[in-house]
Amino acid sequence: MDKKIRIGIVGYGNLGKGVEMALKQNPDFELEAIFTKRDPSTLQTSHKAIHVSEIWNYKEKIDVMILCGGSANDTPIQGPLIASCFNTVDSFDNHQSIPEYFKKVDEAATNSGKLSLISVGWDPGLFSINRLLAQTVLPNGKDYTFWGKGVSQGHSDAIRSIKGVKDAIQYTIPIESAIEKVNTFENPDLKACEKHKRDCYVVVEEGEDLDRIENEIKKMPNYFEGYDTTVHFVSEEGLAIHRSKIPHGGFVICTGKTGEGNRQKIKFSLDLESNPEFTSSVMIAYARAIHKLSIEGKSGACTVFDIPLGYLSPKSMEELRKELL
Amino acid sequence: MDKKIRIGIVGYGNLGKGVEMALKQNPDFELEAIFTKRDPSTLQTSHKAIHVSEIWNYKEKIDVMILCGGSANDTPIQGPLIASCFNTVDSFDNHQSIPEYFKKVDEAATNSGKLSLISVGWDPGLFSINRLLAQTVLPNGKDYTFWGKGVSQGHSDAIRSIKGVKDAIQYTIPIESAIEKVNTFENPDLKACEKHKRDCYVVVEEGEDLDRIENEIKKMPNYFEGYDTTVHFVSEEGLAIHRSKIPHGGFVICTGKTGEGNRQKIKFSLDLESNPEFTSSVMIAYARAIHKLSIEGKSGACTVFDIPLGYLSPKSMEELRKELL
Repeated sequence: MDKKIRIGIVGYGNLGKGVEMALKQNPDFELEAIFTKRDPSTLQTSHKAIHVSEIWNYKEKIDVMILCGGSANDTPIQGPLIASCFNTVDSFDNHQSIPEYFKKVDEAATNSGKLSLISVGWDPGLFSINRLLAQTVLPNGKDYTFWGKGVSQGHSDAIRSIKGVKDAIQYTIPIESAIEKVNTFENPDLKACEKHKRDCYVVVEEGEDLDRIENEIKKMPNYFEGYDTTVHFVSEEGLAIHRSKIPHGGFVICTGKTGEGNRQKIKFSLDLESNPEFTSSVMIAYARAIHKLSIEGKSGACTVFDIPLGYLSPKSMEELRKELL
Repeated sequence: MDKKIRIGIVGYGNLGKGVEMALKQNPDFELEAIFTKRDPSTLQTSHKAIHVSEIWNYKEKIDVMILCGGSANDTPIQGPLIASCFNTVDSFDNHQSIPEYFKKVDEAATNSGKLSLISVGWDPGLFSINRLLAQTVLPNGKDYTFWGKGVSQGHSDAIRSIKGVKDAIQYTIPIESAIEKVNTFENPDLKACEKHKRDCYVVVEEGEDLDRIENEIKKMPNYFEGYDTTVHFVSEEGLAIHRSKIPHGGFVICTGKTGEGNRQKIKFSLDLESNPEFTSSVMIAYARAIHKLSIEGKSGACTVFDIPLGYLSPKSMEELRKELL
């Protein structure tokens, strides 16, 4: 029997827990250790929990490190650092900063001879693949990405930063009339705020001015300004209902014409009850590819655009041709 | 400016014409010649038409040959033969025979040092990719492929083979109740005939027994037996309406659970007004990848599972990371 792929998880939030669970569904992997910035004894897990400062002792024991920290503060630092010693997979999702982040990780991984896949999950990740397929197969077409209905962590955090707000959850919701325009080949030009509306559930401190808070939310630049935003003030119990799941989803759609005007439509959609669990499932499939490609001698940073999809599967190319082609 | 990718088309039916039109949408290609088994002077094209027996004179003039013959009789012969001299891309879609066909093309292309991509289009092709993604990302899930509504050439031909039938068109139509079961996570076991029904438009010779013909269609093994089949007898003019477009489509859907039972759904769907034009658009994108990979020194036969998706694009990996990730 082949040796199992030995995994380390760095960061034990929703994503790290998702990876831990996803590994159970993939028998060709084993989880060697979970690395955390916290006191390892406080982690609620049956696996080995290790302080992240000891990660360097695991150089010979781990094939791929899955980076599960936040894209704002953890991954930009941890990515290049850990790539200097391990193969890595991360879900860095700050689209703007990807070129800069790629460069840093590429430098570290090229020096160490390790292989690092950055920015994999569903967006960036599977959605990126589908944007690419759409644009290359239908070069005269136009592609659109819609997100939701789902919880945006960034927007929820933004609301929580407002004075007087105790807690909040924000749903991003695609606008039906915009979807309709795309579906009927109108090829509209649509800004993000013309494709999505925002639905906010907010718990406030006692005695706060609700109008002031609603106003501050709706006028927040980059996050809510220009969007059709609805604010619902709820109790803590009312908010708890929204906490039980972390749903998300969305779709990439491309409409284009070929030949003398034949209309062609490609659509890739996700409907997810747990965003972090799905993201980590994608990361695990790609970790398998990274392990195989590293054994073949590849090094440096790479993205979903560099990976032959057959490498994601535990099956041989021969089996894949026979069963799936 | 980079040199254009020089293409040869082998076979000038619907698919070959589709490739000819698709090339117009992709300015990094140029069409060098169309090769045909017919008298080249009879081809209605503004491009150079050459008899296929002269194909060997084009060894230095063509980067990738796109094989557009039929999967039943042309490609099984032409694939290995042309791979002995040229990079090739084909859409061989006889799923059962793919392993055997792969082996023959691989042998020829390995010997010649050329690179041959077999079985690319939408199914096999984009649908194969999505079956693979589904199974690797959701290993506890179940994936289903539905085809239609669309014209099945094979089934139309089968009806035409019946005595007394002048002409026929067969539509494959997905069964709504089956889709519903999949959508609601019932994880049904579904045979092809439980997922699709068949709608036939048939023109008969004068004086033929309609009951006998309808009966022969409905009882034809492999093609119609076991299926919910409807037969409409129409006039030649009535059939002509169905000839104006060659629509098709369908989808790959996967439902699975992660973690402690969170339901996740992945769906990839196509809605096509012209099946051959879309298939040829996919072939052209992959021809770009084959050209690049051949320059990098790859040879032998390969499939969509072997190709890093970034190679499909005229853009650099750096541009793709910046714009599409």
